[in-house]
Amino acid sequence: MTTDRLTHVDDTGAARMVDVSGKEPGARTARAAGVVRTTRQVVDLLRDGALPKGDALAVARIAGIMGAKRTPDLIPLCHPIALHGVTVELTCEGDRIEILCTARTADRTGVEMEALTSVATAGLTLIDMIKAVDPAASLDEVRVLSKEGGKTGHWERDR
Amino acid sequence: MTTDRLTHVDDTGAARMVDVSGKEPGARTARAAGVVRTTRQVVDLLRDGALPKGDALAVARIAGIMGAKRTPDLIPLCHPIALHGVTVELTCEGDRIEILCTARTADRTGVEMEALTSVATAGLTLIDMIKAVDPAASLDEVRVLSKEGGKTGHWERDR
Amino acid sequence: MTTDRLTHVDDTGAARMVDVSGKEPGARTARAAGVVRTTRQVVDLLRDGALPKGDALAVARIAGIMGAKRTPDLIPLCHPIALHGVTVELTCEGDRIEILCTARTADRTGVEMEALTSVATAGLTLIDMIKAVDPAASLDEVRVLSKEGGKTGHWERDR
Amino acid sequence: MTTDRLTHVDDTGAARMVDVSGKEPGARTARAAGVVRTTRQVVDLLRDGALPKGDALAVARIAGIMGAKRTPDLIPLCHPIALHGVTVELTCEGDRIEILCTARTADRTGVEMEALTSVATAGLTLIDMIKAVDPAASLDEVRVLSKEGGKTGHWERDR
Amino acid sequence: MTTDRLTHVDDTGAARMVDVSGKEPGARTARAAGVVRTTRQVVDLLRDGALPKGDALAVARIAGIMGAKRTPDLIPLCHPIALHGVTVELTCEGDRIEILCTARTADRTGVEMEALTSVATAGLTLIDMIKAVDPAASLDEVRVLSKEGGKTGHWERDR
Amino acid sequence: MTTDRLTHVDDTGAARMVDVSGKEPGARTARAAGVVRTTRQVVDLLRDGALPKGDALAVARIAGIMGAKRTPDLIPLCHPIALHGVTVELTCEGDRIEILCTARTADRTGVEMEALTSVATAGLTLIDMIKAVDPAASLDEVRVLSKEGGKTGHWERDR
Repeated sequence: MTTDRLTHVDDTGAARMVDVSGKEPGARTARAAGVVRTTRQVVDLLRDGALPKGDALAVARIAGIMGAKRTPDLIPLCHPIALHGVTVELTCEGDRIEILCTARTADRTGVEMEALTSVATAGLTLIDMIKAVDPAASLDEVRVLSKEGGKTGHWERDR
Repeated sequence: MTTDRLTHVDDTGAARMVDVSGKEPGARTARAAGVVRTTRQVVDLLRDGALPKGDALAVARIAGIMGAKRTPDLIPLCHPIALHGVTVELTCEGDRIEILCTARTADRTGVEMEALTSVATAGLTLIDMIKAVDPAASLDEVRVLSKEGGKTGHWERDR
Repeated sequence: MTTDRLTHVDDTGAARMVDVSGKEPGARTARAAGVVRTTRQVVDLLRDGALPKGDALAVARIAGIMGAKRTPDLIPLCHPIALHGVTVELTCEGDRIEILCTARTADRTGVEMEALTSVATAGLTLIDMIKAVDPAASLDEVRVLSKEGGKTGHWERDR
Repeated sequence: MTTDRLTHVDDTGAARMVDVSGKEPGARTARAAGVVRTTRQVVDLLRDGALPKGDALAVARIAGIMGAKRTPDLIPLCHPIALHGVTVELTCEGDRIEILCTARTADRTGVEMEALTSVATAGLTLIDMIKAVDPAASLDEVRVLSKEGGKTGHWERDR
Repeated sequence: MTTDRLTHVDDTGAARMVDVSGKEPGARTARAAGVVRTTRQVVDLLRDGALPKGDALAVARIAGIMGAKRTPDLIPLCHPIALHGVTVELTCEGDRIEILCTARTADRTGVEMEALTSVATAGLTLIDMIKAVDPAASLDEVRVLSKEGGKTGHWERDR
Repeated sequence: MTTDRLTHVDDTGAARMVDVSGKEPGARTARAAGVVRTTRQVVDLLRDGALPKGDALAVARIAGIMGAKRTPDLIPLCHPIALHGVTVELTCEGDRIEILCTARTADRTGVEMEALTSVATAGLTLIDMIKAVDPAASLDEVRVLSKEGGKTGHWERDR
């Protein structure tokens, strides 16, 4: 299910946006995740910021959804695709906030990059909100968990 | 040098873009880093893609520089600032690619978010280029290394 | 034809981009309108600005068309869709400029938001051009007039 | 404090971005407001959507803040300026949601357009979220309430 | 294969985005070209900049690919379309750099504008990189070479 | 007044956004020009499209002004700057439309790229509007005419 060469450069090494016009449109899903590491104190503040009228976690969820839509603007060789659904879930645990994003399309290419960009944008937004309290917060383990659809079918992370 | 509350929400918890119009403009620098973890085989492919006419690493460097400029579009409560200089360095070692970004401004706010967004965009771009070969590649340790300038002066990561 | 809950938040209240990948693509049209209220003097100036080589109204028409294309960038939970046609009509009458926009697609979701965003962008652009003469100009009655297509079929405003 | 001609077109009527390089930078503030009219039932749903983990109103607040940053992309003849602070307040009353935005800068031009664009974007976002329940919701009275700073000084709406 | 009127304005001369919802989706390709004229010395510098780790030409290739994706943001009456493949080739000869772009889609409209915008963006990017050495560099002959697909079928430039 | 190396790549050839934080802000102006070559018939159509309510030339003027604002989004190594004024003039003569753009700033870098991007965007927009009538139209001679301000002072094209 994988290739052994870089598809985004041609034989001379020049970058290109790979032609996908011959691919069939079809339902595709990707789930990606990541984690923001900070301190327990900060995670408590975010939870407080999540009380009634508290927008702290909402800002990150919405940034993640909007970030998914900006993927082709950010990733140079990524195709602009029809994005048909995005969810972002945030879970506060101890000194970390887990980010889980699911992206869906019925287009010609996979949506891994959209799911990953969503996770990264939500994570950076959390860091932006907490950086005055914890300038050492980090974003880690931004990775695809699973993919469905397309010619390659189901793939699930095993490491 | 840090506060004990979230500055990006007001007393009721509502999100806001903090007013910085009273802050002095001044030279500020931020260095951020991250790492893409993949396999040795993929790192070798990227190095090959970096041979004459090979754009593989260039795509990520350029995406990182352009990503820094898109920071206020992506991070909801981030101020649009004058970005005066950006460099992105990539180092291939074993099964990982280290990303180091330096961002500079002479404006009213720090440029940590610009440096972090640059690192994340370069990292996601690398993952986009290698995902057909290694769908399990991940982006880790996206973090600020140091900051200079502004009222808080010098800060350097110690963990 | 309407629901009794907010579709853009899930059961826990978290924002999401609703999955529309199961919806059928099909021809859809939306008409929206709005009005800029100002003074008779200003409406006369705009009409003069609409004489040969006069771009005043053209700026608003073009801003409206371009604004429709920016809808998914502005409205967080709105799907990026294929926009297949947009017209913006401006009518100067007395102390008001009426704005009428028609948006068309052959995609999976309705185009009300595109039509409304077009009207609002055209209206704000008119206010930008006249604000030095009439700082009290306002944009009112931004609303959908009618929709065609999709599962819900025809809808027409009755209030 | 007002002029009697359109400043955004030249003597031949051609559109232009007025040269402001000779203007002094300085603190400027603008407050703008608007109202989304819908039904009592919908306003109750939004309030429910604003309970713990409820993002409904947060989505609109954040869209308003981000919309302010997109002003020069949307309004053709508007200058790109340094936006130094934005707040968006939403008040649910009866069958309406009041939107109040304050925008601040220390740049060369006023920030009325940023405040108005913020109000319109927040309002359209509310309509997007409630349109499945009330397709007849409208955005009204988008207007500047007051301005401070710059050569023209204080201006306050009186009609 | 051509018309004798401007399709982008209606009978009254008002600008519009032409409705293409009735057009059949189908494979379409456009090739466009252009040339940056500078000095032999500069072309040698660019070639040197294209040695190992040299990004000079890569920056222009990538800018061209990304520029193609921004076409509907830049060209007011252009439809946002699904762009399925883009390549940019640069050839250094004497005192000129030839730019050749191929754009592909399987959508409802042609991709000439995407190919042309790609060429222009790559060309402007080259000028940006060399302007400190040759402020008189120019971009010339930005033109469509050929088109395939759609109702009008094959077209090839003959002048 | 010129250098003999590419400033946009470092000693290893890696692309960078040059640090300009040490440069003095100051008034700078750039004039750039270009020409769209088509047929006499098309130029007549554009003039007709420029009659009362005719938006044809206005679309290109406005696209040029808005294009100048998008320069840092399009040109990878270009700094985002405060753009303080833009004018676009179009002159129809025989079988050509001359485009002249003036861009002004009071910032740290020159505005040649903004002026050139404005010319190219206006030119591409004209080609978009006329391509159904003349698919062979081309954009030529996109070049800087003169620059004022900054350390290098006045420069005027002599070839």
